[in-house]
Amino acid sequence: MTKEVKSDIEIALAAKVDPITQIAESIGLSADDLELYGKTKAKLTYETIHSLENKENGKLILVTAINPTPAGEGKSTVTVGLGDALSRKGKKTVIALREPSLGPTMGIKGGATGGGYAQVVPMEDINLHFTGDFHAITTANNALSAFIDNHMQQGNDLNIDQRRIVWKRVVDLNDRALRKVVVGLGGPIQGIPREDGFDITVASEIMAIICLATDLKDLKHRLSEIVIGYNYAREPITVGELGYEGALTLLLKDALKPNLVQTLEHTPAIVHGGPFANIAHGCNSISATKTALKLGEFVVTEAGFGADLGAEKFLDIKVPALGKAPDCVVIVATIRALKMHGGVAKTELGSENVEALKAGFANLKKHTESIQQFGLPFVIAINKFITDTDNEVKALEELCSANDIPFSLTEVWEKGGEGGLPLAEKVISEIEKGTANYTRLYDDAESIEAKLEKIVTKIYGGMGVELSTKAQKQIVDFKKYGWDRYPICMAKTQYSLSDEPTSLGRPENFTIHIREFIPKLGAGFIVALTGDVMTMPGLPKKPAALNMDVDENGNAMGLF
Amino acid sequence: MTKEVKSDIEIALAAKVDPITQIAESIGLSADDLELYGKTKAKLTYETIHSLENKENGKLILVTAINPTPAGEGKSTVTVGLGDALSRKGKKTVIALREPSLGPTMGIKGGATGGGYAQVVPMEDINLHFTGDFHAITTANNALSAFIDNHMQQGNDLNIDQRRIVWKRVVDLNDRALRKVVVGLGGPIQGIPREDGFDITVASEIMAIICLATDLKDLKHRLSEIVIGYNYAREPITVGELGYEGALTLLLKDALKPNLVQTLEHTPAIVHGGPFANIAHGCNSISATKTALKLGEFVVTEAGFGADLGAEKFLDIKVPALGKAPDCVVIVATIRALKMHGGVAKTELGSENVEALKAGFANLKKHTESIQQFGLPFVIAINKFITDTDNEVKALEELCSANDIPFSLTEVWEKGGEGGLPLAEKVISEIEKGTANYTRLYDDAESIEAKLEKIVTKIYGGMGVELSTKAQKQIVDFKKYGWDRYPICMAKTQYSLSDEPTSLGRPENFTIHIREFIPKLGAGFIVALTGDVMTMPGLPKKPAALNMDVDENGNAMGLF
Repeated sequence: MTKEVKSDIEIALAAKVDPITQIAESIGLSADDLELYGKTKAKLTYETIHSLENKENGKLILVTAINPTPAGEGKSTVTVGLGDALSRKGKKTVIALREPSLGPTMGIKGGATGGGYAQVVPMEDINLHFTGDFHAITTANNALSAFIDNHMQQGNDLNIDQRRIVWKRVVDLNDRALRKVVVGLGGPIQGIPREDGFDITVASEIMAIICLATDLKDLKHRLSEIVIGYNYAREPITVGELGYEGALTLLLKDALKPNLVQTLEHTPAIVHGGPFANIAHGCNSISATKTALKLGEFVVTEAGFGADLGAEKFLDIKVPALGKAPDCVVIVATIRALKMHGGVAKTELGSENVEALKAGFANLKKHTESIQQFGLPFVIAINKFITDTDNEVKALEELCSANDIPFSLTEVWEKGGEGGLPLAEKVISEIEKGTANYTRLYDDAESIEAKLEKIVTKIYGGMGVELSTKAQKQIVDFKKYGWDRYPICMAKTQYSLSDEPTSLGRPENFTIHIREFIPKLGAGFIVALTGDVMTMPGLPKKPAALNMDVDENGNAMGLF
Repeated sequence: MTKEVKSDIEIALAAKVDPITQIAESIGLSADDLELYGKTKAKLTYETIHSLENKENGKLILVTAINPTPAGEGKSTVTVGLGDALSRKGKKTVIALREPSLGPTMGIKGGATGGGYAQVVPMEDINLHFTGDFHAITTANNALSAFIDNHMQQGNDLNIDQRRIVWKRVVDLNDRALRKVVVGLGGPIQGIPREDGFDITVASEIMAIICLATDLKDLKHRLSEIVIGYNYAREPITVGELGYEGALTLLLKDALKPNLVQTLEHTPAIVHGGPFANIAHGCNSISATKTALKLGEFVVTEAGFGADLGAEKFLDIKVPALGKAPDCVVIVATIRALKMHGGVAKTELGSENVEALKAGFANLKKHTESIQQFGLPFVIAINKFITDTDNEVKALEELCSANDIPFSLTEVWEKGGEGGLPLAEKVISEIEKGTANYTRLYDDAESIEAKLEKIVTKIYGGMGVELSTKAQKQIVDFKKYGWDRYPICMAKTQYSLSDEPTSLGRPENFTIHIREFIPKLGAGFIVALTGDVMTMPGLPKKPAALNMDVDENGNAMGLF
C-alpha cells in the first residue's frame, strides 16, 4: 500500500468537531442539561442524571479481548468503530469509555481514545487534563494523606501505626523515583518520619470508588469505608473514623459527573473514570454507563485488558452495582496477536504462519467459553491488519465456523464506522435473539477461598489456588472483620491466563499463587495479588514528551 | 448589634449569579470569545486576547495595604467592593484578582475571594478546583521533576549532580510531611536516591512564570530558562538543555488563558494566577491584567501582603512586563490593625485606644511615602469594623488631614459596592488629576547590591543590607552567568518593614540580612531570602476540612 497514513492526532485535529450542545441534542438533552468545558466537552448535571432514572435501559454491549500481546488488539478502536457503525445503522448509540491517564501520554506514544478513523475527540484534551476529574482524584487522595500525617503529628488520638499505613500518595505521572520515598524528615515540626510511596492516580482507590459509586451519597459512604492503615493493636482505621469523608466528597463533587464528548463521526461518547485493570476493576464509571443506558438505544462499553481480567471484573464486580448485564459481548482479537499466542516472535509477525494462528486460537477459544459461563452471547471481532494474508483469514474463518463461533472482520481503524458495519449487524442479530441470561460466577456470601477457586478454575482454566502464609493469615483476619463478604478483584498479569506472563496461548495444569490481599473497602472489593503489580510506571530513555509542543494559538503538536 | 451575620458561603450561595455569557456581553464579548466551564465560569480564547491587542488601556488601580496583622485588613474585600462601587458610578469596570490556593482552604477557614457582600462568585468553585489552572501547574511542575529524575536514571548525559537539584516537587495542599523527603529509594530500578521536598503549588516557579508570561511563545521561552540545578562542575542546567519546554507549554496551554467570573453585584472579574508574595511577586497574571485593561474603563487589581512586598514587586517586577503603571494606588488599613502596629495585643483590640492608633499610624505613613517615591497618587481606604469607636475614627481622620493624605472609610463587607462609593469618588478624583508619573525604583542594569540597597533604604526605611558569606559568593557567580541583570524579588516577613516579624509599626535603624539568593530565571527574577521562608504550610489540629460536606445535588457546605 502506498496510501499516505496519517497519525491519530493529524486525523483528530483535521476533523470537524460538532458543538457538544448539538451532540447532546441528538440524544434528547438540552443546553441546560450540560455544564460546558469549552465548546466540545461537557459534564452532565446531577439534576439531569436524576431526571433520567425512570427511563428504560438500552441494550448493553461489552467489548473485551484476548490476552493482550505487544502486537496490539485495538479494543478501544473497535469500541468506537462499533458505536459509529451502530449509529450508521440508524440505532441511537452512546459509547461509554474510560478516561486516559496523563502519565503514560508523556512517556510512550499512544493514546487511549481509539485510533485512525475510530477515535473520540477532542483527543488532545481528553489525553491531557480533560475536565479535571483525575486532578480532583489526585487532590482528594493526597489530601487524605495529608490528613493522616497531620493526625499523627497532632497527638495521634487514633493510635495510627506509622509503619502500617496502607494509604499511599499519588501523581498522574510516570515517575519511578516516587515509588518508594521517606516522608516527614527534618525534625519534630516537619511531621513523623515514615516510609511511603506514590502510585499513579489511576491506581488510587478513590479512582475505583468514583467508578463504582452510584451517586454522591454512595460516594461519601464509600469514602468513609476506606481502610487507611492499622493502629498499634493492628486494628483497621477508616476514613470515617478520621472524619474527612465530607471534605473528600466535596473535592470530588464535579469529578463524579460523567463527561460527554463525541466520536469523529459524531456519535455521543461518555468518557468517565479510568481505574487500573489489575489492582482495580478496570471499567469506566457506573454513572457513565448508567447514564448512557438511559440515553442510548445501544450502549457500547469496554473493559480493561483481556476477558480473564476485564470482562470477569465487569461481570462480577461492576454489573451488580450497575444493575444491568450486557446483552452481548464482543471479543476483540487480531491475527497478529493470535500468532503471538501461537508462539511467533514479534519480529516475525510480518510472515504468514497459519499453524501458529491455529495454535494461538486456543486463547480466543478459552475466552469464548468463559463468556458462555456467564450466560452471555458473544461475537468475535477480528481487527484487520495490513499484514494479514488471505490464507490466515481463511484459516481463522474455518476455525470459528468449526467451533460455531460468530465472528466478523472489522476495518474501523482505516474506515471508521463503515468498517464496522458487518460487526454491528452480527451484534444486532445476537441481541435480537435475546439469549442473554446473565449468571454471576459467585455469590458474595461465599468464602474468599471459594470465590478464588471459581475464578481460577472456571475463567483462567487453572487447577486451583495456592495461598501464601501471609494470605492465609489475612483470610482469618478478614473473616473476623466481616470483609470476606466482598467480591474479589484479581491482580494478575494481563498477558497470560496464568500468573506467568510468558505463558501464552491456553496454558493448562497451572496453579495461581496468591501472595497477599489488599482490602479496598471503599471500592468494595478485596484485591488478590498474584505477584508484583506495578502501580507506578517509569519513563523511557526518550520520553514522548521530548517531541511535544504547542503552536501560538494553543494547538497541540507531537501528541502521538 | 443584633443583626444576623451571614457567613461568606451563605451569602455567596444565596446570590443570583448571572450566566457568564451575560457578564461577558456587558464588556463587549460574545459567546464565541469564551470557553465555558459550567454556566458561571469561562476562559477567554487566545484569538479573543489577540484581537484586543490594539485597543486602548483603561485606568489601572492597584490595591495594597499596610503590613498585615492577625487583625485582618480585608484587601481583597476592598478590591471587590471598590470595583462594584465604580460600576455603580457608571464606569465600565473589570476586577483582576489572584486565584486562591486549595491547600489553605482545607486548613483554616477563610477564602481568598473577598468577603461579606464584596465577593467574587462562584466562590465555592473558585476556592476548590476552579478551571484547573493550579492542577495544570502542579502537573507541569511534577512532570519536570520526573523528567529530571528520569534523565539521571537513563545515563545522566548532562551530569546532573543529584545533590544540587534545586527544582522541587509541589502539591496544592498543606502537607508538612512532604517538606523534606527522600525519593528514589528501593534499589537500582527505582531511580537515584536523593533528598527532595514538596512546596505548595503557589510557590512553584511555574506559577510565577504563568503570571509573568505575555503569550504562549513567551511562556515557552521562560520555561526553557528555568534553572533546575547544577552539574558536577557546578554549572547551571536549564529546562532548555533537557528539552522539555514544549511538553511543559503543552501542559499549560489552557492554564495561561485568563478566567472570567463576576462579583455578587455582577461586575466582571478576571481571576487568574496566584504566586506567593514572598519567594515570588504575588500578583495575578499579566494576561489577566492586560486583558482587563482592554475590556474595562477602570481596572481594580491587588498585590499580595503589604505595600513593602506586594506593591514594590508589582511596580518593579510586574509593571515593566505589563507595560502599564497604575494610575492610582489604594492602601488598605483598619483601625484594629493600626492599633496592633501601635502595640495593642489582639485580645485587647475591642477596647478604644487612640494613643495606640496614633502610634500605629506610622506604619501606614511609611507606605504612603513609598508609593510617592514611585511617583503615584494614592488614597487610604479604612475598612470599617464594628469595634471602631467614634474617637478612633476622628483621630485617624485628623492624622490623615494633618499629613495631607486622601482617605476614605469603606463599608464594603457589610454593604457591597454601596459601601465603597466614597472611596470610588476619591479614587476617580485622584485619577482625573492625572498626576501619576511612574518611576521605577531601580534599573535592571544596576548591580544586585545597588538594587537591594534601594529597596531596603527607600521602601523598608532600613539602614542597609548585610550579605551572608554564601550570598556574597553567589553574587560573584551570578555576575559570571549574567544573572545580575534580573530584578530582585525580596522574600521577607510580611509582618514588619524589617526582617524581624515582631517589629511592628515603623521600625528604624535596622539592617536587612540576606541569607541566600535563588535564581528564578524562568520567572525572570532573583529571589533574595532574608530568613526562613515557609513554602509548604501545615494543617492545624482541627482542619477546616472536618466541617466540609456536600449535599446530594453537589452544593458545597461548611466551606468558610
